[in-house]
Amino acid sequence: MRPTEESVLLTDLYQLTMLQVYFDQELEETAVFEFFVRKLPAGRNFLVACGLERVLDFLEDLHFSQDELDWLAGCGRFSTRFVNSLTGLRFTGDVQAMAEGTVFFADEPILRVVAPLREAQLVETRIINLLQLQTLTASKAARVRFAARDKLLVDFGLRRAHGAEAGLLSARASFVAGFDGSSNMLAGMHWGIPLFGTMAHSFIQVHDVELVAFEHFAHSHPGATTLLIDTYDTEAAAQALLPLAHRLAAEGIAVQAVRIDSGDLGEHARRVRAILDAGGANAIKIFASGNLDEFAVQALLDAGAPIDGFGVGTRMNTSADHPYLDCAYKLQEYAGVARRKRSEGKATWPGRKQVHRRVDGAGCMLGDTLTLEGDSQPGTPLLATVMRAGRRIASSPPLAELREYARTQLAALQPELRRLDVAAPYSVDVAAPLRELARQVDQHRG
Amino acid sequence: MRPTEESVLLTDLYQLTMLQVYFDQELEETAVFEFFVRKLPAGRNFLVACGLERVLDFLEDLHFSQDELDWLAGCGRFSTRFVNSLTGLRFTGDVQAMAEGTVFFADEPILRVVAPLREAQLVETRIINLLQLQTLTASKAARVRFAARDKLLVDFGLRRAHGAEAGLLSARASFVAGFDGSSNMLAGMHWGIPLFGTMAHSFIQVHDVELVAFEHFAHSHPGATTLLIDTYDTEAAAQALLPLAHRLAAEGIAVQAVRIDSGDLGEHARRVRAILDAGGANAIKIFASGNLDEFAVQALLDAGAPIDGFGVGTRMNTSADHPYLDCAYKLQEYAGVARRKRSEGKATWPGRKQVHRRVDGAGCMLGDTLTLEGDSQPGTPLLATVMRAGRRIASSPPLAELREYARTQLAALQPELRRLDVAAPYSVDVAAPLRELARQVDQHRG
Repeated sequence: MRPTEESVLLTDLYQLTMLQVYFDQELEETAVFEFFVRKLPAGRNFLVACGLERVLDFLEDLHFSQDELDWLAGCGRFSTRFVNSLTGLRFTGDVQAMAEGTVFFADEPILRVVAPLREAQLVETRIINLLQLQTLTASKAARVRFAARDKLLVDFGLRRAHGAEAGLLSARASFVAGFDGSSNMLAGMHWGIPLFGTMAHSFIQVHDVELVAFEHFAHSHPGATTLLIDTYDTEAAAQALLPLAHRLAAEGIAVQAVRIDSGDLGEHARRVRAILDAGGANAIKIFASGNLDEFAVQALLDAGAPIDGFGVGTRMNTSADHPYLDCAYKLQEYAGVARRKRSEGKATWPGRKQVHRRVDGAGCMLGDTLTLEGDSQPGTPLLATVMRAGRRIASSPPLAELREYARTQLAALQPELRRLDVAAPYSVDVAAPLRELARQVDQHRG
Repeated sequence: MRPTEESVLLTDLYQLTMLQVYFDQELEETAVFEFFVRKLPAGRNFLVACGLERVLDFLEDLHFSQDELDWLAGCGRFSTRFVNSLTGLRFTGDVQAMAEGTVFFADEPILRVVAPLREAQLVETRIINLLQLQTLTASKAARVRFAARDKLLVDFGLRRAHGAEAGLLSARASFVAGFDGSSNMLAGMHWGIPLFGTMAHSFIQVHDVELVAFEHFAHSHPGATTLLIDTYDTEAAAQALLPLAHRLAAEGIAVQAVRIDSGDLGEHARRVRAILDAGGANAIKIFASGNLDEFAVQALLDAGAPIDGFGVGTRMNTSADHPYLDCAYKLQEYAGVARRKRSEGKATWPGRKQVHRRVDGAGCMLGDTLTLEGDSQPGTPLLATVMRAGRRIASSPPLAELREYARTQLAALQPELRRLDVAAPYSVDVAAPLRELARQVDQHRG
């Protein structure tokens, strides 16, 4: 059996039941689907597009394996002719998308699929699954980055991320959005994301004496010695490690930082800073972790806590205050005719759309216009073709480049949108041609 | 490169930095770690243990691949001798655990690892990652099951689950906790979980006429015809499908249900029920989906909404109101000596522990006692050995058996704990021998 993340059957049953009908009825014209977020989560002023690379990997690799076909043939729901028709199925369509790291808003498509109906339909579930997770995490991580200012910021969230893929991809998404690195080794191996990590409380506990644990660690990792000091008594450990730090310095080993992971982090940091400074260990930095999110980080720094870096995990990786997006992948056109859904509260803008963004002379964002592809509007169009006939048109940009692009995107946000509290919404106009098309589509349906 | 879910490097850097020290210092005695939840999430009265099978798979398969070893050797953080020592590393320890589907509470270990220090430490991150996700989802799903009473309950959450593994494992966890099935095809292929699914709005939209879409679907799926009626106008669609339903009946095709996915689900269900009944289609059931969780399901049924089944997705799979558990995998003993961490707000009970559960004559739960392994206490011990020397001691129970076990567990909960609002906490006593050990451990540390 294929790994979970690669199986084409990681999808909803209805995709296949619909494909059976399309096969029976020979419905095989070109379909256009777009992925967008209906509404920003409460309390959020913007989102950061992320996940495109994995979507393109998925589309390039799309196929049914023999055991998947055998299972489909035997499950009693599908005709043999239909299952046979899936044997050679590949994704042959085009994709337009916003680059990863692009800031975007409600109703703006960040990805469009233009493909034969059954291909465009089959990929729905996994596209949503991949784009939602990574956009969610990148958007949350960007807020943490704003709150943390220029401090070191490390993703510590693997253990409480929702499973393997979420752990890996949220390390990447948070790095793109401005984190400095991750504790996740696989993210380091996959993408060269800088790795950070020290020791667990268990490490201190297996030693009978805390200071011996510190010393052992320093000797094994002379170039990367950060000591966890809160296992028993934070301030006592800070005091006790001073003579050790001096002794290690004489051996040429610098203790780089201490980590505090419990209690009132701001208060402990102040006391520990005072102890270290009084002991001549001004160069030892303070790293804090434990239940942090953008609000906690901002509160600590606003209060002047002498913290040089933060490990932010669970609440960032799971986007704990809003662990999902109100997002959708919706049919906008079939067989050359624009379509829209009108379900209550879920109506969509029909047709193939483009987003134009206007900026001022300094690059600061002024407003977006949502319109039809090909309509001429002021500003820069944000969606570009990234795949043709099932193949990427260019190799993937290096992660450092995406991260730098995201940085400039986030820097261009109006200052009030960068704050953690809710600001007046960013201006997204719907252009006249798109409104007119929606009207025509509704009229046609009567 | 191995799939994400299989890589031993899907772990935190600090596990490997600690292992380097243990290697250098020859710290290789037996370590005992336990996984537990420190505190129930706000608003929850119980948790349901889930995820053990995947943990055992992970432990049985644990090894470093050659490319992982090469990467470790080249990353500049570890000694060659240490990396070489990982070549043949396997998990050789024992595991005691609560069965999947067991109801449990704060501070009660649901899994214990007893293994040479480096093995027991290395597996921390992934064990937490696997147990948290599945326990979280199973616990949320159990609440939805209580709210839904005996109605059909289907997992619809794959698309907004956090990535591939979360989508797959939450289908399994919700099934164990009482859901009737899932839309997730891979869950059907892997475990035979019953699959449910019909059509998307896009299916209606690619047809110019809604009724034609319904008819096409019925002809392709004569044995499983559920029609989505809210794409344009819910009640109009219900009215319009009546003649079609009668025509199909004449062909021997029964429309089984209609699905409503937007608007006021209760109000639409009432109107649609009236329309169907007035049209002689009393046998057609009503299935509802869209933004549902246990509270919404309960409110609908309390208000008498004529809904026969629910698709519950995003909010269950992501455990949206509490998307993480305050859980930990902590060292409780090393080299035969009990240990505990005393960090503020995070102190743990030391030693190898057992949970005894007392029930009344009808099987209803009366209270638990947390004590040391081997201590004699009234009630049934909940942790049992499931792995010895790195191998399962029995093959995995069939999923249906786990589901039935979970059902009896949930049925044994005191009625007030089964309600959605917060009840007085279930009684978990800490036995005297465990309190005494904690005292001794603290005294020893001074």
